[in-house]
Amino acid sequence: MNAPGSLRIVGIGPGCEAWITPEALRLIAHASDLVGYGPYLERLPLIEGQRRHQSGNGAELERARHALRLAEDGRHVALVSGGDPGIFAMAAAVFEAIDKGDAGWRDIDVAVSPGISAMQAAAARLGAPLGHDFCAISLSDNLKPWPYVEKRLAAAASADFVIVLYNPASRTRPHRIHDAFSLLRGLKAAATPVVFAHAVGREDEHISIETLAGADPSLAGMSTLIIVGSSETRIVPRGSAPPFVYTSRGVKVSR
Amino acid sequence: MNAPGSLRIVGIGPGCEAWITPEALRLIAHASDLVGYGPYLERLPLIEGQRRHQSGNGAELERARHALRLAEDGRHVALVSGGDPGIFAMAAAVFEAIDKGDAGWRDIDVAVSPGISAMQAAAARLGAPLGHDFCAISLSDNLKPWPYVEKRLAAAASADFVIVLYNPASRTRPHRIHDAFSLLRGLKAAATPVVFAHAVGREDEHISIETLAGADPSLAGMSTLIIVGSSETRIVPRGSAPPFVYTSRGVKVSR
Repeated sequence: MNAPGSLRIVGIGPGCEAWITPEALRLIAHASDLVGYGPYLERLPLIEGQRRHQSGNGAELERARHALRLAEDGRHVALVSGGDPGIFAMAAAVFEAIDKGDAGWRDIDVAVSPGISAMQAAAARLGAPLGHDFCAISLSDNLKPWPYVEKRLAAAASADFVIVLYNPASRTRPHRIHDAFSLLRGLKAAATPVVFAHAVGREDEHISIETLAGADPSLAGMSTLIIVGSSETRIVPRGSAPPFVYTSRGVKVSR
Repeated sequence: MNAPGSLRIVGIGPGCEAWITPEALRLIAHASDLVGYGPYLERLPLIEGQRRHQSGNGAELERARHALRLAEDGRHVALVSGGDPGIFAMAAAVFEAIDKGDAGWRDIDVAVSPGISAMQAAAARLGAPLGHDFCAISLSDNLKPWPYVEKRLAAAASADFVIVLYNPASRTRPHRIHDAFSLLRGLKAAATPVVFAHAVGREDEHISIETLAGADPSLAGMSTLIIVGSSETRIVPRGSAPPFVYTSRGVKVSR
């Protein structure tokens, strides 16, 4: 029988060193094995003797099981996730694998280390668009029927939440973002601020500020995060610099 | 006329050093002036020559204006916020102050540095309760009428979001968390997992896992964050360790 291993599910944030926590760096440095999507692992310095297990995008459940099997074999595994592993990333897949897997997996030493998620990185660049009540919704319908997504979008619009859209589009799902915009345009004001934040924190970072009526959903790709404002989201123009976008902490009431 | 100052709105996370970003540490170390709520500033090491401007809790807009006036006077200010300044914290107050304030304030060099928010810290300790679509709602009705909060709670429940409750209670608002639980109990299953996460990342951290029917809302205080599960949120019992809590990435559909 092997000495007990461990699994740490580690968030490395959006991609720049300034936004990675000391805990994440320490867990990665001390791991015997790194598991993760190739481009995330490639951002990390090579450490002698440390094994790397790269995988493609998708197949999260299989990647989670691979990491659990390594920990079961006595390895000290860091499963590396972009952003925060707890927000539309690898942590849910690991706990689902444990829940549905071998009973012995429940005794593996497993813990999560949080990271800066894409929505926080985008919000920081813009001002404070998430300054008040908001929802985060994944537009992927790989694991759930599209009507569930529509129901959540409609509920979020009806209650005037700021709406953050993760996974707006991919090569195999280019159309859902168009469906989502059609739905939201029927429920929210045309002038609602909409932000497309691409690869924030990385070299190819690009942010554009639009309106719900004017935005072109086909500009969204796999690395895009979209923020759709509430009725209290404001754009503050500035002379030479890009405008600020923020959501007021209060709601104006006519008396 | 003074040389241009600057304002950095800096998130220091939930309170432990392991979860503060290198960017936040650098901005705090290089600031000429720190502005913030007393207990946040007290967590930071003293730096010779650096001025501290402590304030009480609340009065966010006045604190934001004070920081902007210092930057206007040529100071290099770090406005220190717990968690992520963009999520129910100081950033929205600063941009609201700029929006409604002197036109010259729009030219001040202002930027936000994100941090780990309380919901991420709590989620990391539990497993992956925010593993799928979620809403974050502040229960404070200081700046908005309570019916807005009720509307958002009802919409979030109707569309089966995981619901994160910030600011559940304070000395002046002890009752709203009871109102919120009454409303949610009428709309969601009695067995829905509910988590009370107190001061995660600090010495007095305490987490309890309850059900919607069984939870006692009067246990919530100013440092408590509450997570109310969706119908896909699961509790995974373990032998000697606390259970994991996660939200499945998919939705089961009867065919």
